[in-house]
Amino acid sequence: MNFEEFGELASQLIQANHAKQALQALNKQQKMFKTLLSQRLLPKEGYSDQQIEALLSLFASMDTNNYENHTGIGEREGRVFSNLVMKRHFHLSHGIGRSGELTSNQPKAAGSSMILQLTNYLVNHALQIAGCRNAKKSIVVPMCTGMTLSLCLRTLANDIKQPNKKFVIWPRIDQQSVLKSIDTAGLVPLVIENIVNEDGSIEADIPAIEKKIQEVGVENILCVLSTTSCFAPRVPDNVFEIGKICHKYQIGHIVNNAYGVQSKIIMENINKTIASSKSTITCFVQSTDKNFMVPVGGAVVASGGECEEFVDKVSKLYAGRANMSPILDLFMTLLSMGERRWKELLSEREELFQYFISKFKTEETTPSENSNAIHSSLSENSQSSAIHVHTKQSLTVNTTAPSQQLITGSNSRNQISFALSLHLSKEQALRLGGRLFYRNCTGPRVVLKDTTKTVVGIDFVGYGAHTNEYPHHYITLACAIGIQKCEIDSFFDIFNKEIGTLTTK
Amino acid sequence: MNFEEFGELASQLIQANHAKQALQALNKQQKMFKTLLSQRLLPKEGYSDQQIEALLSLFASMDTNNYENHTGIGEREGRVFSNLVMKRHFHLSHGIGRSGELTSNQPKAAGSSMILQLTNYLVNHALQIAGCRNAKKSIVVPMCTGMTLSLCLRTLANDIKQPNKKFVIWPRIDQQSVLKSIDTAGLVPLVIENIVNEDGSIEADIPAIEKKIQEVGVENILCVLSTTSCFAPRVPDNVFEIGKICHKYQIGHIVNNAYGVQSKIIMENINKTIASSKSTITCFVQSTDKNFMVPVGGAVVASGGECEEFVDKVSKLYAGRANMSPILDLFMTLLSMGERRWKELLSEREELFQYFISKFKTEETTPSENSNAIHSSLSENSQSSAIHVHTKQSLTVNTTAPSQQLITGSNSRNQISFALSLHLSKEQALRLGGRLFYRNCTGPRVVLKDTTKTVVGIDFVGYGAHTNEYPHHYITLACAIGIQKCEIDSFFDIFNKEIGTLTTK
Amino acid sequence: MNFEEFGELASQLIQANHAKQALQALNKQQKMFKTLLSQRLLPKEGYSDQQIEALLSLFASMDTNNYENHTGIGEREGRVFSNLVMKRHFHLSHGIGRSGELTSNQPKAAGSSMILQLTNYLVNHALQIAGCRNAKKSIVVPMCTGMTLSLCLRTLANDIKQPNKKFVIWPRIDQQSVLKSIDTAGLVPLVIENIVNEDGSIEADIPAIEKKIQEVGVENILCVLSTTSCFAPRVPDNVFEIGKICHKYQIGHIVNNAYGVQSKIIMENINKTIASSKSTITCFVQSTDKNFMVPVGGAVVASGGECEEFVDKVSKLYAGRANMSPILDLFMTLLSMGERRWKELLSEREELFQYFISKFKTEETTPSENSNAIHSSLSENSQSSAIHVHTKQSLTVNTTAPSQQLITGSNSRNQISFALSLHLSKEQALRLGGRLFYRNCTGPRVVLKDTTKTVVGIDFVGYGAHTNEYPHHYITLACAIGIQKCEIDSFFDIFNKEIGTLTTK
Amino acid sequence: MNFEEFGELASQLIQANHAKQALQALNKQQKMFKTLLSQRLLPKEGYSDQQIEALLSLFASMDTNNYENHTGIGEREGRVFSNLVMKRHFHLSHGIGRSGELTSNQPKAAGSSMILQLTNYLVNHALQIAGCRNAKKSIVVPMCTGMTLSLCLRTLANDIKQPNKKFVIWPRIDQQSVLKSIDTAGLVPLVIENIVNEDGSIEADIPAIEKKIQEVGVENILCVLSTTSCFAPRVPDNVFEIGKICHKYQIGHIVNNAYGVQSKIIMENINKTIASSKSTITCFVQSTDKNFMVPVGGAVVASGGECEEFVDKVSKLYAGRANMSPILDLFMTLLSMGERRWKELLSEREELFQYFISKFKTEETTPSENSNAIHSSLSENSQSSAIHVHTKQSLTVNTTAPSQQLITGSNSRNQISFALSLHLSKEQALRLGGRLFYRNCTGPRVVLKDTTKTVVGIDFVGYGAHTNEYPHHYITLACAIGIQKCEIDSFFDIFNKEIGTLTTK
Repeated sequence: MNFEEFGELASQLIQANHAKQALQALNKQQKMFKTLLSQRLLPKEGYSDQQIEALLSLFASMDTNNYENHTGIGEREGRVFSNLVMKRHFHLSHGIGRSGELTSNQPKAAGSSMILQLTNYLVNHALQIAGCRNAKKSIVVPMCTGMTLSLCLRTLANDIKQPNKKFVIWPRIDQQSVLKSIDTAGLVPLVIENIVNEDGSIEADIPAIEKKIQEVGVENILCVLSTTSCFAPRVPDNVFEIGKICHKYQIGHIVNNAYGVQSKIIMENINKTIASSKSTITCFVQSTDKNFMVPVGGAVVASGGECEEFVDKVSKLYAGRANMSPILDLFMTLLSMGERRWKELLSEREELFQYFISKFKTEETTPSENSNAIHSSLSENSQSSAIHVHTKQSLTVNTTAPSQQLITGSNSRNQISFALSLHLSKEQALRLGGRLFYRNCTGPRVVLKDTTKTVVGIDFVGYGAHTNEYPHHYITLACAIGIQKCEIDSFFDIFNKEIGTLTTK
Repeated sequence: MNFEEFGELASQLIQANHAKQALQALNKQQKMFKTLLSQRLLPKEGYSDQQIEALLSLFASMDTNNYENHTGIGEREGRVFSNLVMKRHFHLSHGIGRSGELTSNQPKAAGSSMILQLTNYLVNHALQIAGCRNAKKSIVVPMCTGMTLSLCLRTLANDIKQPNKKFVIWPRIDQQSVLKSIDTAGLVPLVIENIVNEDGSIEADIPAIEKKIQEVGVENILCVLSTTSCFAPRVPDNVFEIGKICHKYQIGHIVNNAYGVQSKIIMENINKTIASSKSTITCFVQSTDKNFMVPVGGAVVASGGECEEFVDKVSKLYAGRANMSPILDLFMTLLSMGERRWKELLSEREELFQYFISKFKTEETTPSENSNAIHSSLSENSQSSAIHVHTKQSLTVNTTAPSQQLITGSNSRNQISFALSLHLSKEQALRLGGRLFYRNCTGPRVVLKDTTKTVVGIDFVGYGAHTNEYPHHYITLACAIGIQKCEIDSFFDIFNKEIGTLTTK
Repeated sequence: MNFEEFGELASQLIQANHAKQALQALNKQQKMFKTLLSQRLLPKEGYSDQQIEALLSLFASMDTNNYENHTGIGEREGRVFSNLVMKRHFHLSHGIGRSGELTSNQPKAAGSSMILQLTNYLVNHALQIAGCRNAKKSIVVPMCTGMTLSLCLRTLANDIKQPNKKFVIWPRIDQQSVLKSIDTAGLVPLVIENIVNEDGSIEADIPAIEKKIQEVGVENILCVLSTTSCFAPRVPDNVFEIGKICHKYQIGHIVNNAYGVQSKIIMENINKTIASSKSTITCFVQSTDKNFMVPVGGAVVASGGECEEFVDKVSKLYAGRANMSPILDLFMTLLSMGERRWKELLSEREELFQYFISKFKTEETTPSENSNAIHSSLSENSQSSAIHVHTKQSLTVNTTAPSQQLITGSNSRNQISFALSLHLSKEQALRLGGRLFYRNCTGPRVVLKDTTKTVVGIDFVGYGAHTNEYPHHYITLACAIGIQKCEIDSFFDIFNKEIGTLTTK
Repeated sequence: MNFEEFGELASQLIQANHAKQALQALNKQQKMFKTLLSQRLLPKEGYSDQQIEALLSLFASMDTNNYENHTGIGEREGRVFSNLVMKRHFHLSHGIGRSGELTSNQPKAAGSSMILQLTNYLVNHALQIAGCRNAKKSIVVPMCTGMTLSLCLRTLANDIKQPNKKFVIWPRIDQQSVLKSIDTAGLVPLVIENIVNEDGSIEADIPAIEKKIQEVGVENILCVLSTTSCFAPRVPDNVFEIGKICHKYQIGHIVNNAYGVQSKIIMENINKTIASSKSTITCFVQSTDKNFMVPVGGAVVASGGECEEFVDKVSKLYAGRANMSPILDLFMTLLSMGERRWKELLSEREELFQYFISKFKTEETTPSENSNAIHSSLSENSQSSAIHVHTKQSLTVNTTAPSQQLITGSNSRNQISFALSLHLSKEQALRLGGRLFYRNCTGPRVVLKDTTKTVVGIDFVGYGAHTNEYPHHYITLACAIGIQKCEIDSFFDIFNKEIGTLTTK
C-alpha cells in the first residue's frame, strides 16, 4: 500500500486528523531515509534508536530469509536456529558479499547489501570529516586491522605478479599483529630500527628506508608498511616523506593507521600525501573499534588520489561471503552519531588529551614558563628538549629524584598517547603495572627497557619500547576517543597514590 | 518517498534486478499490513518476528515522542529515561486512551492508538474462533480480571443509577479475587451455596438464585456474577439458565470467564446465551494471560447480542490514560499465532486434557469397559456415576483402599480441570502438596475438606472446596493452554512416586 | 557452585590471574546487589545497563517459569507464546501479587516478588529525596493515577464501613480523570468552585470546603480529594490548610499529586502535612510516568505519619494478580538513575522552569525592575500583581495591545506550569493551538474562556479554565522533568512566529 | 555475597519458604553452568533463552568494560557509542584473542575469553556427534570459510618454511571462493580436472593427483586442497584415498568441508582418515552458518590424529584481536540446541533428503522396481547406472522426451545435494532459473553446460558444472540443515508448474 491508502485505513481506526499528523511524520521519516540513500553522507544530526530500528527493519524486509513465502533450496539460506541470535542481528543473517567479491551485492540479501554500500560511503565521509578530505573510497572489512593489512599486502603482491617482490620494509613498531600481518601474508619483513631523539621521542629512521631499498634491490621490495598511530614516546611515521621514497622507487606504501582517525594531525598528513603527485599511499587501514566506538571486529581500508581503485582490488581478493556484524555495528553507530556528534567526539578527545597532559604539568616549579614551553611543544614541528615535570605526589616524596617524568618530545608529535619515564627499579615498575590493573585501570603499559622477545622469528631487544636501547623504563598512556574526564581524574589519583606507595616503601 | 523512488535509489546502490526483487517483497509486506488494517482479523498464518517488528516500527514512527523535531511542552511527553525500558516498549511510551475513555485515541500517539484498536478487533476474532461466534465487541483492559470485573460491576451500577441496587448474587466459587471484585466495586455479595452431586461434582444451585432474588427484592439486585472457568470438581455455571433468570427479572449478568476461552464447551454456552432472546449476558470477562499465553496483566471484556454496547460504557468509566503493555503483548502474540496456530493450540489442549485424564484411568481393572464409560462421560450431558480409577502405584500399595480416585463427575463438565479425591490424612495431603511444590510442580492444589477462611468479611467453611461439606480432601489439576505433553508425563511420574512414598510410610 | 569453585573452573579455561581479577569484579557486583537488597535505597550512582540486566537475570532465574525442570499443572503457569514478548519482559511473566493482595508475594514468582518489594522501597526513597522526607510507605499500583485514586477512595469507603459517607469534596480542577475517579468508585463528588485572584491565578476556595462539610453534614462526607499538580494559572491546593479541616472533622484527605513529585514546593508541603499532628493526608497519589520518565502505566500511593498503614489497605483491596510491567519499568529506571542523577534531574527541571519563564520576560519595557519583581514573585508567598510581559514578536506587532501576557500570579505558586493570557479572538486562539500541533509542539493547551462541558453528569462552564468566568483565553505550558533546553528554545521560536503570523493577518 | 547471604536477604523481602525454593533453583542453575564449564560438552538438553542470557550476563560481568569503577587509559577500552549496538552484543565488546594469538585469552575480557574457549570445546563435541569421533581440537575463526582456508594454507606454508612449496593441488570444484583462497594465500593452484561417470556423477580424478605430484615434483607441492561438500552431480572427494597419497608423499592435506558436517557419510570418512596411520588430513574446515544455523561469518578449523596441534598453529597466525560475533552466535546456538536437538536436526535433514529425492521418483513408470533401485543407489558404494525418473508434469507434456531427470549417480554419493538434468534449450534453462528466483525460491542453481569463466587467471570451460564437458544443462538442489518439509513441497509444486509452462510454450 502507498501512504495514501495507509492514511485512509488509519483514519478508519483513529481520528482522521491524528492519522493525518502521523502520516506527515511517516513522510518526514521517509524523506530522512531518502536523503541518506541519495546523499550517502553522515546525517547532520544523529538518528534516534527508533529511527535506526525503523531503517533496519526496512532493510531486513528486503532480505530473502524474511520473505513471506520463501522457499530455500540452497546450502545457505540464512536460517537461524536461535531466536536470541536472530534478534541480535535484526533478522539480517546472510552476511555480505559473494564468493566473487566482498562488496558485490548478495542476491539473497538486497537489504544487507544496501547497508554494506551505505556503510562504506558513511565511513568514507567520517574519514573526510576527521581531516582526510581526499579520501575517495573506503570499504569496511570484517576482520581485524592485522588481518586486513595482511589482505592488503597480498592484494599488492598478487596485483603486481612479481614473485620476487616478497620484502616489506617496516619501520619498527613494537606491536605484534602488524609484524605478524606481513608473515601471515607470506611475505618477509625488513625491520628498520628507530631513532631515539634527545627529547625522548622515538621515530622512524627515514633515510634508512631508502638505504635498505638500495641494499636489497628495488626489484625485491613490495612496499613499505608504515605506522601512524602508536604508543608514545614513539611518534607517528612521517607518511609524506616515506611516501616520497615509495613514489620515487615505485613501490607500494601501506599505512597502518590503526587508531589514527581520531588524530587530526595524522589524518591531515595522510590527506596531504594522497593529494600529492610526489608522494604516495597505496591504502591506509584503520580499526573500526579503535576509532568509532564499536565492538572489536572490523577495519576500514581507504584510499584516494592515484590509488583510488586499490580498495576495489582488496575487496576482490577477499575469498568468500563475509560476516556482516562489524559493518552493521558501524552503520548503526555512524547513524546514531551523525555529523555533529562525530565532530564533537573528535574535538572533545583533542581537548581531553591536552587536559590529561596538563595534569602532569601542574606541579612544575616554574609553571608559567613551562606552560608556554609545553604549549609550543604541542605543535607538530616543535623540537623542544625534555622537560621534567612532576606530580604532586612524587614531589612530596623526593623532589630531587622525581619518580616519573613526562617525556615531552613524544607528546608533541603523538597526540593520542604520551609517556612518562619511570625512575623506578624493574621490580617497582612491574609492581606499578600490576597495581594499576588490580585497581581496574586498564590500558597503561609499563615498558621495561631491557625486554627481549622473538616475533615471527625475529629477535627484538627492548621489545615494547620500539628500540633496542631506551634509557629508562616508562609508562605509556592513551587518551582515546570516548574517554571521560572522570577516567583521567581517576587515573591520575590512583597513579599518584600507587607511585607514592612504591617510592616510600 | 514512495516505493518507486526508493527502488530507484536502491538500484543505484545495488544491482537493479535485486532491488526490484526486494521492492516486490516490500510491497508484499505492505499488502499484508494493509489486509490487517482493513480486515482486522487474525492473519491466516502467524507473522514472523521480523514482520511483527517491522509493523511495530511503523506504528512507533507515528507516535509524537519519536518525531524528528518534536517539542514537548506538556506534563506528559512520553519521555523515557532508560534505554532498556524504551527498547522493551518498542519506543511506544504514551500508553493508551485519554482521560475521557479507554478506547479514545490518544492524539500524541496515533500509532499506539491503532495498535489498541486492532488488538480489540483481533481478540474479538479470537473469541469467535474459540466458539463464541456471536461476540461483537471486545476491549482489552490493562488490569487483571478481578479489577476488570469490578470495573464492569461499577459500570453497571453507575449506568442504571439506582443506588439501592447494591447486591450482587454470586454462586460461590472459592477464588478470592472474584469475591473481592464485588467489594472493591463497593457492592455487596449475596453468596449462593453450591450443590454437591452424587458423582462428586459441585455445581451452582440455580433455583436458589431465583429464590434469593425474590427474597431480597429485585429492586435491590444489581446483577448475578456467574463463573464459567473453575477448578474441578466444581463445574462451570450454566450461564444460559442463569441468564434466563436475569432476563426474566431484568437484572445484569456478568460472567467471570477467567480462563474459559480455551474451552469450546464454555465458549459455545456463552455464545448460545448472547444469541438468545430469552437469556442474557451483560458482558463476559476473561484473562489475557490465562487464555492467550501472555504475561499477567490484562483482561478482555466482551459482549454481544442486546448488550453489545455495554463494553463501550466500561471503556468510558476507566479513569485516565492506561498502561499499554498488556495490549502490546496481546497484539504481538495474536499476530505471531495467526488463526492457524490459535486453532491448533485450542485443539491440542483439548486433546491433552483427554490424555491427562486417561493417565489416571490406565490401571483400571476393566480397562476396556471403562474407557468406553469415560468416553461417554466426557460429553457435557453424561451423568455417569463415580468411577474409581487408580494409579499403578496406589494399586501396588493397597488395592482395597486406593489413595486417590478420579472424581469423574467433574471432568465430564469441566474440560479444563479435573480432581482426584485423596484418601489420605490431612497431614499426608498437606505433605503431598509441599512435596509437589518442592519438586517444581506448580499448579496442583491440595484442597482440605475442613478449611475455614474469612474473605471480605464473609466466613466460609470448607474454603477452597467451593462447598461447606465436601466428603474428602482432594487435589485439583488443570490442563491449560500451552501445556506440554512432557509436563503431564512428568507430573504423573512425580505424583505417583510421592503418593507411593506417603502411603507406604 | 560458589564463586571459589567458579574461579577454579574459570582458571582452567583462562589464565589464573585473569580469572582472579574477573572473580573480584563478580564479587564487587554481588556486593552492589547485596547493598541494594539490604539498604533498599536508590544506589548512589546509577547502575549500568549491563548491571541492570545482570540483576534482572538473577531475579528471573528465581521465577518458576524459568526453572529447569518445571512442571506446570495450574491454570496460570507463566507460559509465553511469543519470543519477542518473553524477551521484552526479561522472562518475567507471572505478574505480581496474589488474589489476596497486591503486595503479597507470589509463590510462583519469587524473583518478581522481590522486584516489587524493592521497587516500593526505592520509589519511597525517591519521594523522600524529592522533598517528602516523612514518606514512610509507598506502593506502585499498575494502574493509571485516576484508577488508583478510585481504588484509594474505595479503600477509604470500605474501611470505614459507613455507607452514608458517599460524598467526596473536590475543589474543582478541570482534568477529567480525577473527577471520573470519584464516579468510578461509586461515590458522589461535591464540587468546590475556585477563586480567581487579581493576579490571574486560580485557587481552591478553602473556606468553602468547611462550609460544604457543615452544609452536607460530616456524617455524609467521606473525604476531600485535593490536587497539587495542575496547569497554571490554577495553583496547587494548599494541602496543609485543607488537611487541617479534614483533621478537624476526622474525614479522609486524599491528594492527587499526579505530577507533583518534580516540584520541591509541593513535596515539602505534603511533607509538612503528614508530619503535623494538626493536619492530615490519608495518602497521596502520583503518576509514575509523569514523574519518573517511564512509559504510561502506573501510580504510586504513598503515606506517612498517622496514616502510614493506609497503603497496606489499598494493596489489600486490589482484586487479583497484577501486571508487572509498570513496576519493572520503574525498577529499571530508578536503578539506572541512581540518587545522583535523580537529584540532578529534579534540579535541572527547576532551573529550566525559571529559564522558560524568563524567555517571556526578556522584552519588558523596564526589564531591570521587572526581573526583580519576577524574582520575588517566584517564592511561594509572593502576592505580586499581574505583570505584563511581552515577547519581542508581539511588541513588534502592536505595542499597545500585546497578544499575550505571562500570567504572573500563577507561576509564582505553580512551579511546573505557567500560562500566558491570549489577547486573541476565539478563532485565532484555536488556530494557534492547531498550528502548534501541526508543527510538532505537543503539550501546550489553548484554553478558551467560554467552553462548556458535562463530565460524569455535572455541567461545567469555562471547562478547562478551572473556573466559570476567567477573563480571557490563555495558553498553558509545562516544564516537566526531562525537558531539554532546546525544546524550550524551539517552542519559543515557533510560538512567536505563529503568534506573529496570526496577529498580522 | 554468597547464596546463603542472598537467601537471608531475600527472606526479609519475601516469604522465607519462597526464598528457599528460589535459592534451590539458583543453585540448580549454577550447577548447570558448572557442568558446562567442567565437562565442556553440549548440554544434553538445550538451554532456554533465559538460561543463555543468565550465563552471558555472568560472563559480561567479567569483562573490564563492565566493571563498576573501570578506568580506561588505553587505545582500546571496549567503549561502545550506541546503546543498540552494546545491547546486541550483550555488553561484550572486547573481541577475542590478543595480537599474539586468536585463542589467547584477552586480559581485558575474561568473560569473552571463556566464551571463546567453551565454544571451541562445544563445537568440537558437535563435530564428534556428527560422525567425526576422532576430532580432537577445533577453533572457531571469525572469518568465512574461504579466508579461513587461506589462513590454513598460509599456516602450512609458513610452518614448513620451504618457499618453493608454493603449489596447491586442487581437484576442480566450481565454487570461486575456494580457488580464490589459494590465490589469497599467495600460492599457486594446480587444477585437477574431474571425471564424469556413466551415471552422471562427477568425481575427482585421484590417480591424476599422484601423477601431478610426480610431474611437478613433491618438493614444490605444499598440499592437496580437497573438497567434501559440493553441489551434485559432483560427489564429495574421497578424502581417505587422497589422504593416502598425501601421507605417502608427506605433503599437507587440507579439506574444504564447508557444509559437510551435516552429512554423516562425509563426517565418517573424515573420521576414518584422521584415525588412520596410512592416510592424513592436516585440518578440515567448515562453515559455521552452513552447518549450525547461525548468521554468516565464521568457520571451524578442526583436526585430529597426528595433526592435532595444527589448529594451534592456525590460531597463532591470525594477526590481531578478532571479532567475537560469530563465536558468540555459535555459543548461544549450541547451548540452545543441546545434544538432543543437534542430533535431531542432523537426522531430520537426512530423512528430508530422502523425501526430497523421492518426490522426483513418484511418477516412475515402474515404481516398484525403481524404488528398490534407488534405495540401493543411496548407499555410498552403489554404482548404479543412470535411472530416468520424471515428474508427473513432464510426463504429461512429453513422455518420450522428459524435460528433466534425476541424475541418480550423484545423489547416491552426495547426500546433501542432488541434480536434475534439464532437457531444455539454454534460453529455457535460464528462464527457469529466473522464474524460480522470481517466485522466491532461492538456492537452486541452473548450470549450463557451456559457460566459460576466468577465475584468478585460470580459464574454465563449463564453469559451474565442475567439468569441461557435461552432457546437458542441469539444475542442482540442496537439502540443507534446517530445511522444512513445506519448503520441499512448495518447491516441488513451483518447479513443476514452471517446467510445465516452459515446455508447453
